[in-house]
Amino acid sequence: MTEVSRPDGETNGEQGPARRSRLTRRGFLTGSVGGLAVAGASAVLVGCDESKAAAPKPVTQVPFRGTHQAGIATPAQDRMAFAAFDVTSTRKQDLIDLLQTWTAAAEKMCAGQPIGTVGGTGEQVPADTGEATGLDAADLTITIGFGPGLFDNRFGLAARKPAALEPLPSFAREVIDPDISGGDICIQACANDPQVAFHAVRNLNRLGFGTTTMRWFQLGFGRTSSTSSSQQTPRNLLGFKDGTRNVVSEDVDAMNAHVWVNETSDQQWLSGGSYLVTRKIRMAIEAWDRDRIGDQQDVIGRTKVEGAPLTGTKEHDEPDLNAKGSDGQPVIPVDAHIRLAAPESNAGMKILRRGYSFTDGADPVTGQLDAGLFFICFQSDPRTGFIPVQRKLAADGLNEYIKHVSSGIFACPAGLADGEYWGQRLLA
Amino acid sequence: MTEVSRPDGETNGEQGPARRSRLTRRGFLTGSVGGLAVAGASAVLVGCDESKAAAPKPVTQVPFRGTHQAGIATPAQDRMAFAAFDVTSTRKQDLIDLLQTWTAAAEKMCAGQPIGTVGGTGEQVPADTGEATGLDAADLTITIGFGPGLFDNRFGLAARKPAALEPLPSFAREVIDPDISGGDICIQACANDPQVAFHAVRNLNRLGFGTTTMRWFQLGFGRTSSTSSSQQTPRNLLGFKDGTRNVVSEDVDAMNAHVWVNETSDQQWLSGGSYLVTRKIRMAIEAWDRDRIGDQQDVIGRTKVEGAPLTGTKEHDEPDLNAKGSDGQPVIPVDAHIRLAAPESNAGMKILRRGYSFTDGADPVTGQLDAGLFFICFQSDPRTGFIPVQRKLAADGLNEYIKHVSSGIFACPAGLADGEYWGQRLLA
Repeated sequence: MTEVSRPDGETNGEQGPARRSRLTRRGFLTGSVGGLAVAGASAVLVGCDESKAAAPKPVTQVPFRGTHQAGIATPAQDRMAFAAFDVTSTRKQDLIDLLQTWTAAAEKMCAGQPIGTVGGTGEQVPADTGEATGLDAADLTITIGFGPGLFDNRFGLAARKPAALEPLPSFAREVIDPDISGGDICIQACANDPQVAFHAVRNLNRLGFGTTTMRWFQLGFGRTSSTSSSQQTPRNLLGFKDGTRNVVSEDVDAMNAHVWVNETSDQQWLSGGSYLVTRKIRMAIEAWDRDRIGDQQDVIGRTKVEGAPLTGTKEHDEPDLNAKGSDGQPVIPVDAHIRLAAPESNAGMKILRRGYSFTDGADPVTGQLDAGLFFICFQSDPRTGFIPVQRKLAADGLNEYIKHVSSGIFACPAGLADGEYWGQRLLA
Repeated sequence: MTEVSRPDGETNGEQGPARRSRLTRRGFLTGSVGGLAVAGASAVLVGCDESKAAAPKPVTQVPFRGTHQAGIATPAQDRMAFAAFDVTSTRKQDLIDLLQTWTAAAEKMCAGQPIGTVGGTGEQVPADTGEATGLDAADLTITIGFGPGLFDNRFGLAARKPAALEPLPSFAREVIDPDISGGDICIQACANDPQVAFHAVRNLNRLGFGTTTMRWFQLGFGRTSSTSSSQQTPRNLLGFKDGTRNVVSEDVDAMNAHVWVNETSDQQWLSGGSYLVTRKIRMAIEAWDRDRIGDQQDVIGRTKVEGAPLTGTKEHDEPDLNAKGSDGQPVIPVDAHIRLAAPESNAGMKILRRGYSFTDGADPVTGQLDAGLFFICFQSDPRTGFIPVQRKLAADGLNEYIKHVSSGIFACPAGLADGEYWGQRLLA
């Protein structure tokens, strides 16, 4: 049996090593498989209930390296910290140095380790900010993406810019705040402990001083999508199950067709990667809460409690978009959200949704909760993924209750081979 | 064995009852003790590791009624949603009606139940907003407090105002934003699932329309205090363990002496209650992170990794405030946080701290993280509790790195007997 608590047991110079040793149930369980990182083996190991939207997850580490970056196909963790950075240095080598530093730090954190000293001795400045000390990896994934601005003339990357990596066009009804939109680089940190996710972004931000500045940051308190068939569909702040028909990682064909950039793309460095789109969507939840259940269900196209399409009785029943009621009208209304977002309405296109609920407190003017959905999706090409779907959603009945207030697009490279750093295929 | 999933299995009028029945491990465990709410029995029931700061908690319900309000002595849950409301109606009966409605709703939510219909039929407006459907009670507690403003001449309560219930005085170095301070009524919702805590505040806010308006709201993503000797001390965003010497609920003498308002207080309606103080404390974490470990430890008075006082080697060693080093200077510096906050420096006074880490995103001007501690404490009298301690902290070396930006004080009445509503002893 191995003690697998966070290996931060550095000695304090003056006080000596006084950290209590613990053999925890979690430690035992992880130790029992030889201390290996076993993503996805949660339920087997612990036998806990994995079917609850907010069930605490047993401790696992998600491998940092692999064919694809973690945090896309990874079963959606419960909490998220997302940051966008602008690069302030104009030296390409600074960018490379930072990405190498970030890669090493991210790999450590995803293994449940601090990025360096937490304590130390008198004159030393701790390398790690320390608030995750004593916490486990909590399924942390850290995913990087590169925004359109990185491909301007600062770093000589213009010729390597993917044609699809353009700022999103304007959409109907949106009110985009540039202060919380865009960015040269994004970091998506997801974990089952928010302190672990926050710690990851904070420490990368700190390492970036002098090279990057944080442009915006968003905490997501509860996942609104499942990305694995092993997960139960969570509810968003409209009170409805969200993402019932989401692409799941077990559907390899769908992942290859709709999520991963393939080898025929215009930029080989992005092969095996994915395009990440963010949209902060504020919900007028107080107005929504006053709406009749019949209208709410017509707006979504599903029942509220079960989440069944209006043409079915069970959540996972296939919606029948052609079904008509006795009045001759479509059972799933023409402006229902699930109709307009359905692959059947979008030439078969699917996107992998991976969003989180947020709240930023009370609106000081209206006294209403500033809350909603921090929408994240991944796709192989935004020109056939998010953009046409969002255009179609101009007719969405849900627009009465939502407002898009931020926008971002990032190209997430493929996963890393041993020894590789984030962006190496782009920059080397 | 009882199915104890959230009892929201209402039928959808058109689609029929299609909700999947689940017998979960959690359900089994709760069912195995007869479905009774067993607060504090977590570790015994599940045998999980209770020693980790962020360990997922097994499912329990915390009893809503009792001698004292839950959410004070209750072992600090991991997540928090806190709101302050202003009463917009000037009719006392409206206030009474709302508090009766709120009490019934809060009791249901703390039992893991929706406050009414989630679905329903066509013209019905759902009574519950629905986003907690399918989630369990997650140790939810909902605690109410009354601010000084409630005792003005609107409701005829001036004569019932406790002498100690005055807006907090100004303190050195604070920069208080009135938009996120004060309020007539506060609601503290704590749970181990943030969606459950958010749902509680949102639904009470909704029920208050026409009588109250939300003045401010704060989400806390991770607890920074333990209030039970069964809990491991968590870390705040300075990376240090916080609240090592906190009052714990098992110390009944300390609770009676320092936390609960006793029968000799000036207002009998508050007997068995407590005064709640909130302070939003923004931390300059980027500056802190650049400080040398020796200085960080001198500022706090403890070692960072272990959390031991500088005069000891283990976290729970008693600090020796008189110890001097070979240089003749105090080992725990004169401006160390733990010295100035210590009961020994404050005539033996203690306060029960129950705060949470927060982040509100990136500061748009500086690009730094807007983050810190949403400080909450409970005490039998703020005039001998928070106020003198905070005055003493004017000399705190930590002030270089923190700024108080909000302030609130509320009188939390005692717990409720069967059939009683929140505030009944004040208003009836």
